[in-house]
Amino acid sequence: MNNKKDTKNKKNIVMHIAYDGTNYHGFQRQKNNLAIQNILEKVLSAFLLEKIEITAASRTDAGVHGENQVINFFSSTKIPVERLPYALNRILPKDIRIKKAFLMGNDFSALHSSTGKEYIYKVYEGEYESPFLDKYALYVKEPLDILKMRKALNYLIGTFDFTSFKSNGGSKTLPIRTIYKASVTKIGSEYIFHFHGSGFLYHMVRNIMGVVIRVGEGKIEPEEMKIILEGRDRDLAGKMAEAKGLYLVKVHYDNHNL
Amino acid sequence: MNNKKDTKNKKNIVMHIAYDGTNYHGFQRQKNNLAIQNILEKVLSAFLLEKIEITAASRTDAGVHGENQVINFFSSTKIPVERLPYALNRILPKDIRIKKAFLMGNDFSALHSSTGKEYIYKVYEGEYESPFLDKYALYVKEPLDILKMRKALNYLIGTFDFTSFKSNGGSKTLPIRTIYKASVTKIGSEYIFHFHGSGFLYHMVRNIMGVVIRVGEGKIEPEEMKIILEGRDRDLAGKMAEAKGLYLVKVHYDNHNL
Repeated sequence: MNNKKDTKNKKNIVMHIAYDGTNYHGFQRQKNNLAIQNILEKVLSAFLLEKIEITAASRTDAGVHGENQVINFFSSTKIPVERLPYALNRILPKDIRIKKAFLMGNDFSALHSSTGKEYIYKVYEGEYESPFLDKYALYVKEPLDILKMRKALNYLIGTFDFTSFKSNGGSKTLPIRTIYKASVTKIGSEYIFHFHGSGFLYHMVRNIMGVVIRVGEGKIEPEEMKIILEGRDRDLAGKMAEAKGLYLVKVHYDNHNL
Repeated sequence: MNNKKDTKNKKNIVMHIAYDGTNYHGFQRQKNNLAIQNILEKVLSAFLLEKIEITAASRTDAGVHGENQVINFFSSTKIPVERLPYALNRILPKDIRIKKAFLMGNDFSALHSSTGKEYIYKVYEGEYESPFLDKYALYVKEPLDILKMRKALNYLIGTFDFTSFKSNGGSKTLPIRTIYKASVTKIGSEYIFHFHGSGFLYHMVRNIMGVVIRVGEGKIEPEEMKIILEGRDRDLAGKMAEAKGLYLVKVHYDNHNL
């Protein structure tokens, strides 16, 4: 971890970030493409007059949105931390906003201290695709079967090996995760899928959503979710759902008073 | 009117269009910039294999959105009109959608047959600007005084000379218009302003909204709206509100069964 170097006399600054992922190549720093981390580090380094490297709770993909991404970094700044959001939001592009900033002990890491994450996935139905929702939700023409989708989602609640829902790439952690919540509610013409888990594998929510949508469309039965999960085979889940409907909404830190 | 030429043996096709105005230089056809009309005429002409010129109910500005713009054009096509939305939406960019298409008598004009229009203007409040609403609503940090804004809006209801709220440019029609409705409601952190009038002068809603926001912020009193209106002077209204919060939501055609 880069930011553990020479942190003794520095402050550990934590920030909650919201962003529209549409125009970026995901969160994680890239060499040849513009990622949200590139912009945050550039703006923070320029403003604080020191080289800043941030650690983020989640590496959201290109097109995925953040309602409450959490980052931390070490800084020698003397500027009161609560003044940073206002000052930095004046420099940042409008599709990246700092919601709040505060200090934590030097042992806190936005990534490693996390004990859970929540994601929302949005789908909307209608006679035609809305020009306003195109970047923010998945479109379906016909209504989805909400009871069948609920049944399929229920199979995911608990502690399982989620290998079937992990895309190639991503970190090499064990594929065991606990899902506390996997629900769907309908508000008007919008379906809101809500996931809360101890953590999520690479593309896990989008792979799950691919199956859930096909259940909702009546193409497969809810029991198929159980079969795919128990199969522990990456080829079973089929095509994952598009990034644009996905939002990181909360990161949990049970042992820290956030 | 171009589209009155040789219309005898042609169909008069009417369409309801929705669009996100963010990426376009307004609705009206332009020579050197990309307007929504440019795209619609290009796609319609290519698909119907004839030169199509459309007439629109409203020339919305750059950044203004359309929930229900109405257009009409004359065509010799033999394709059933109800099939056009699906076929054309496959070709059009995702931020422009055809909601429906139907035939009208040849005397109908989306522009000249209109007997009224409705616009919505959206404002939202919050501690920080939302990265998701940046192109779709005006941001205010502090809550607005809704009762004072209602009082100001009430002065606009009726038939008046709206010269004070007309920007330079636009057509040279008489500046007399009737406003049937000018209201504000608050839903969550969002203020929805709703205007229904016989018609609107160039920048009229945005000029009115500039005054309304200043009333809501407590910078001027509601009675100022009456003074500005009665002054019939373009310099009185001050700075107009940004385009991004404005939506054309309905066009009325009282003598036509739309």
